[in-house]
Amino acid sequence: MKQEQLKDLLADMTLEEKIDQLLQVCSYYYEKEGVITGPENAAGFTEQEINNAGSVLGGGGAKLLRKIQESYMKKQPHQIPLIFMADIINGYRTIFPIPLAQGCTFNTEIVEKAAAVSAKESAAAGLHLTFSPMVDLVRDARWGRVMESTGEDAYLNSCFAKAIVEGYQGTGPLTEKGKIAACVKHFAGYGAPMAGRDYNTVELSERTLLGDYLPAYQAAVDAGCATVMTSFNTLDRIPSTGNKKLLRDILRNKMGFDGVIISDWAAIEELIHHGIAKNKEEAAALAMEAGVDIDMMTTCYCGNLKKLVEENKINESLVDEAALRVLELKNQLGLFENPFKDGDEAEELEVILCDEHKKLAKEISIESMVLLKNDHILPLKKEGQKLAFVGPHVDNKWISGVWSIFAKVDENVTFKKGIENLGISDVTYAKGCGFVDPNSGLDVYEEMLSPEEEKAIEDQLLEEALKNAKEADVVVMALGELPIHSGEASSRTNLDLPEVQMNLFRKVSEVNSNIVVVLFNGRPLTIKEISDKSRAVLEAWLPGSEGGNAIAEILFGDATPSGKLSMSFPHNVGQVPIYYNEFHTGRPYAGNEGNGKYFSKYLDVPNEPLYPFGYGLSYTNFEISEVILDQRELTKEGSVEASVTVKNTGEYSGKEVIQLYIQDKNASVARPVRELKGFQKIELEPGEEIKVTFVITEEMLKFYDVNMNYTSEPGEFNVFIGSDSGTKNQGGFILV
Amino acid sequence: MKQEQLKDLLADMTLEEKIDQLLQVCSYYYEKEGVITGPENAAGFTEQEINNAGSVLGGGGAKLLRKIQESYMKKQPHQIPLIFMADIINGYRTIFPIPLAQGCTFNTEIVEKAAAVSAKESAAAGLHLTFSPMVDLVRDARWGRVMESTGEDAYLNSCFAKAIVEGYQGTGPLTEKGKIAACVKHFAGYGAPMAGRDYNTVELSERTLLGDYLPAYQAAVDAGCATVMTSFNTLDRIPSTGNKKLLRDILRNKMGFDGVIISDWAAIEELIHHGIAKNKEEAAALAMEAGVDIDMMTTCYCGNLKKLVEENKINESLVDEAALRVLELKNQLGLFENPFKDGDEAEELEVILCDEHKKLAKEISIESMVLLKNDHILPLKKEGQKLAFVGPHVDNKWISGVWSIFAKVDENVTFKKGIENLGISDVTYAKGCGFVDPNSGLDVYEEMLSPEEEKAIEDQLLEEALKNAKEADVVVMALGELPIHSGEASSRTNLDLPEVQMNLFRKVSEVNSNIVVVLFNGRPLTIKEISDKSRAVLEAWLPGSEGGNAIAEILFGDATPSGKLSMSFPHNVGQVPIYYNEFHTGRPYAGNEGNGKYFSKYLDVPNEPLYPFGYGLSYTNFEISEVILDQRELTKEGSVEASVTVKNTGEYSGKEVIQLYIQDKNASVARPVRELKGFQKIELEPGEEIKVTFVITEEMLKFYDVNMNYTSEPGEFNVFIGSDSGTKNQGGFILV
Repeated sequence: MKQEQLKDLLADMTLEEKIDQLLQVCSYYYEKEGVITGPENAAGFTEQEINNAGSVLGGGGAKLLRKIQESYMKKQPHQIPLIFMADIINGYRTIFPIPLAQGCTFNTEIVEKAAAVSAKESAAAGLHLTFSPMVDLVRDARWGRVMESTGEDAYLNSCFAKAIVEGYQGTGPLTEKGKIAACVKHFAGYGAPMAGRDYNTVELSERTLLGDYLPAYQAAVDAGCATVMTSFNTLDRIPSTGNKKLLRDILRNKMGFDGVIISDWAAIEELIHHGIAKNKEEAAALAMEAGVDIDMMTTCYCGNLKKLVEENKINESLVDEAALRVLELKNQLGLFENPFKDGDEAEELEVILCDEHKKLAKEISIESMVLLKNDHILPLKKEGQKLAFVGPHVDNKWISGVWSIFAKVDENVTFKKGIENLGISDVTYAKGCGFVDPNSGLDVYEEMLSPEEEKAIEDQLLEEALKNAKEADVVVMALGELPIHSGEASSRTNLDLPEVQMNLFRKVSEVNSNIVVVLFNGRPLTIKEISDKSRAVLEAWLPGSEGGNAIAEILFGDATPSGKLSMSFPHNVGQVPIYYNEFHTGRPYAGNEGNGKYFSKYLDVPNEPLYPFGYGLSYTNFEISEVILDQRELTKEGSVEASVTVKNTGEYSGKEVIQLYIQDKNASVARPVRELKGFQKIELEPGEEIKVTFVITEEMLKFYDVNMNYTSEPGEFNVFIGSDSGTKNQGGFILV
Repeated sequence: MKQEQLKDLLADMTLEEKIDQLLQVCSYYYEKEGVITGPENAAGFTEQEINNAGSVLGGGGAKLLRKIQESYMKKQPHQIPLIFMADIINGYRTIFPIPLAQGCTFNTEIVEKAAAVSAKESAAAGLHLTFSPMVDLVRDARWGRVMESTGEDAYLNSCFAKAIVEGYQGTGPLTEKGKIAACVKHFAGYGAPMAGRDYNTVELSERTLLGDYLPAYQAAVDAGCATVMTSFNTLDRIPSTGNKKLLRDILRNKMGFDGVIISDWAAIEELIHHGIAKNKEEAAALAMEAGVDIDMMTTCYCGNLKKLVEENKINESLVDEAALRVLELKNQLGLFENPFKDGDEAEELEVILCDEHKKLAKEISIESMVLLKNDHILPLKKEGQKLAFVGPHVDNKWISGVWSIFAKVDENVTFKKGIENLGISDVTYAKGCGFVDPNSGLDVYEEMLSPEEEKAIEDQLLEEALKNAKEADVVVMALGELPIHSGEASSRTNLDLPEVQMNLFRKVSEVNSNIVVVLFNGRPLTIKEISDKSRAVLEAWLPGSEGGNAIAEILFGDATPSGKLSMSFPHNVGQVPIYYNEFHTGRPYAGNEGNGKYFSKYLDVPNEPLYPFGYGLSYTNFEISEVILDQRELTKEGSVEASVTVKNTGEYSGKEVIQLYIQDKNASVARPVRELKGFQKIELEPGEEIKVTFVITEEMLKFYDVNMNYTSEPGEFNVFIGSDSGTKNQGGFILV
């Protein structure tokens, strides 16, 4: 449909019909027969409201969505189709590693491919939009939702924001087959809840918001992201969903976003809990004034906008504007011409979890895993080594991150299955203990745990594990969190492994010192003791469908690990929030060099994390030359080329992420000690070498100066190029 | 001297002489014979600069300061005297509890008296100014410097800011005998370093800075505080010492401060480390432009201001302005007429640590101690109970907070001495273990610990303690931190008691379940296990000179505890920052009432702290009636009286702190769940009752609204009156 026709359509619609377009309800209202009442309809929708809603969330499957659309269209007087949205966070049915792990690939190409696969499967299943990417900057591992982000760095997140949006949407029209609309979230600053507690107050200066938190959303907007979701938190004490300055001044005017803004689940009604609206009517008015187009799952808009317009409390043009945006989104997706878009049962069967997708899932899983420690024990030998696999996660199929709502957990390749797939035979398997401690707050079991397993901390399990461990040459321990321990509303104040698992680890380490630990988790954990007492640690995250195969291939050397941490691992929870690009202070501490007491440090742990951002080992060895700069001066129009030569001096072919960090030595405001400004993932055969070059321009040196102008300031800069954020491989130039 | 004469004096001075007035150096430059060179003069002052400096810090004692002043005045061409300043934080020689403990008194009168005593002793010792009060809002117990603040609440801190300033300065002229000038610090926001690490970046929105962090400084300014010290941290990435907006726009223009602004130690030079100045010259220019009058302990001003003026890089009028302020301060203190002010060796001998002062120290110590738990075991019986006193803090004389620089540790009454002073006889004493674990980062011993004590974790100590514990009816354990574990540059990521002490506690609890714990510490610690396994816990803080007597009198019932926490005690370090007046969120969690997952909470601990702000038990019982409001509507000009009747229904006479909290139910921005707006400390005999009334006015309901106007907004308010911040005793009114 042409834009002009959309306006005509809008002009034909009644006020009620326009308001209907702004309502989004759950698919389950359409899935069941008859009217839904009681607790199931806690939101309190009328039958008419449900029947006339403009969009639907949560449902999937070509058959279901086709049925819903057909039934809806029969009644729709203007032949305006529904748009179907859902949380496709880790993939539709082919499940990729959690986004935090995808961040560890430092490989935007493969992440874009994964998003494209998610889109393809989702589109075949009849969906039109996914509530992804989540690009919130995350620096506090207590917050469970760090698993949904690509990490602690604004630049890295920006690169992935673009890649993921382009993976879902492509760069052409959204009508293209296999493409779905993206929804970047959560706007804004949701990644910094006070004390790591989900939904808690966010305390950010405007400078930090603009300089550090908004760039990744901006990257998504610049990549053409169709929609934006508001966040649950307040910024400057104003909930995002009622924040006119944030949505209209910043997002629309400054950042140039002109697509649909959608509230997060019930966020408009929650303006009442925030205490800035007295009732649903006020909440509706605030959200509409602020610029929220779609009301997800509350009656605020559908129950109050008409009255608000009729009483002149809000201007009808605001409703028109919002409804037109919804119509435009539907039109961009070609739904007026084809309300089902790519939804197709046959196609669905063909593409979903197909071999090609599984292959990609394995590849990205491999690239996302981070080898944190390796004291000459990995890779394991396929033969001639007696191996004991011990731990509750050895045969655990719950290895996909939360919000894998269309995944089938039985389709996940467990760690054990992955080992079996490699044909490794001289091995034993033992669970050793349960996943969690009773009454620890983590004992919020999913279905897979039988009541008997709740009593899993049993001597019998331990005995078997210790027997196996004692007899083995190497013990591989699979430890960690269950998926439900991270994600939304899963904040933890204690980042240690559950005590029951630590007990198993300690007991095993008493009988065998050759321990390799494989970690499953949705956030950085505090693993100092694990790291100290084991010979190798592989961070496997929540790796999804092909997780077991990926781990097995890494452990046995069929694949060389190449992941780099997207988020720092703290020594202990008392260090958080922690991030590599902290700011210069007046009393910087440089380890033992800085003698004396009065430096910015702790009494009891180092300032640095246990494992920093950008860190990760390989089986091979990469020698990185000194930094060579092609000139010492950078002009505003010119560029400086900074390069290193990287040589694979080890015995395995492998990938390495060469990282560029820049430090602005002096400025009108305190600047980060260093900032990631570029990265390249290269692959080298043993003996092979390559020159890696980064082009540095003045644009990369911009920041918000003392007067809040986004600019660069002349002066000295240091350049660091290496294989993690702690690299000391340094050069320097002057911006003139 | 008259103001007019000061201006004449200034006009007579050369540029160099004016700049000299802005330099502050340590007293040790004057104490030693000859020129100080090498490491002792790391700052790099010339002999001339030292000789001509305008002020001196750190020295004390009438004899010494008189000698320095006499010698200085002989050379001073304009007969401008030195001003002597020092860190009198907990008292001069009569040491009071640390300020965080003083906050627990909720008794501004007694705190004002303590400040007056500090002033009296300091003045007799020749001092003119103390770097106190410290009014930084503190919500993160990792930061060691919380011990210097009166706590987590802006209103409580404001009340104490006024009381302390008036205690030091009086309300009349500063020339008054026994009065010294105050210096409120650290301006601004120093209490919120990222991750609790001292000197680290502070991240605050302007709203939070103005609304929560500045009120206590404002209260000090309004009370006439003579000077303000800049803080080490950045705000909005700009170090306070170079922050023109903060010092000139906010402090001078908005807050109305017209006294001397002094940098913290070397803070001007640290602008270089912050990266906002390239060298000392730039640092000097930035600080001078920002409005810093006195340069503490660097050569930035004395080495560069002349050149900067001569090269027209800064205007001489800025130097004139700063120098005039320094002269005015000296004049306010009457130093032109009497350069020694109250410094007098005879007087010094008479007042310092006199009986009257010790009596006050004991009283304030008693009122500052907080009874956290009492399971029918306290008070102890003076006879007929076999008591074992166990723990490293039983006979520890290091019970004064850091910065007690003129205190003599041997003058402190230890806990053991306090018990002996009461004549309690049927007791045993055992150290049980050392203070800290080797290599814990806390093993930064002060002189009092002999090398042998470092090996204190010995079976012998433990054996003796366990033997005593086994034979006793009640074991009183004295556990905690040493003074050096809190205060400046003493941030901790682990807030547990040292493992060696926990080990002792666990061992003792295995042989005797009647344990009373007395805690010595400079910050809230994580004491969940201690609290669970003991029958009573008394928080004694770092109580100072009379600490032992105060504890003993409380334990044996000669005094009834009445302290209330000035800072919340978290369950674990993963809860910090934590504070009672957090903000409304969109998904508030109300315990089990809120069923379902998606609420703002943790998986593993409650949202609430272990012990909240305002909490503290008594030996007696206070019944508080329902809240009675004299009217339901408040007008802008009117007032509402909220009252309760309080009755002592127990068997002891005692004091109780009746606390008023107000909740603004709806506003244009998210408001705190409740805020302290008044408190009254009352004393009742058994059976006695009293009506406690608070007058609520519109002024108390003001906040920074959505447009950053400081105003109130009409609507509903809840009123809570009770004995801690968690009280549910509730009324309500409407602001019309």
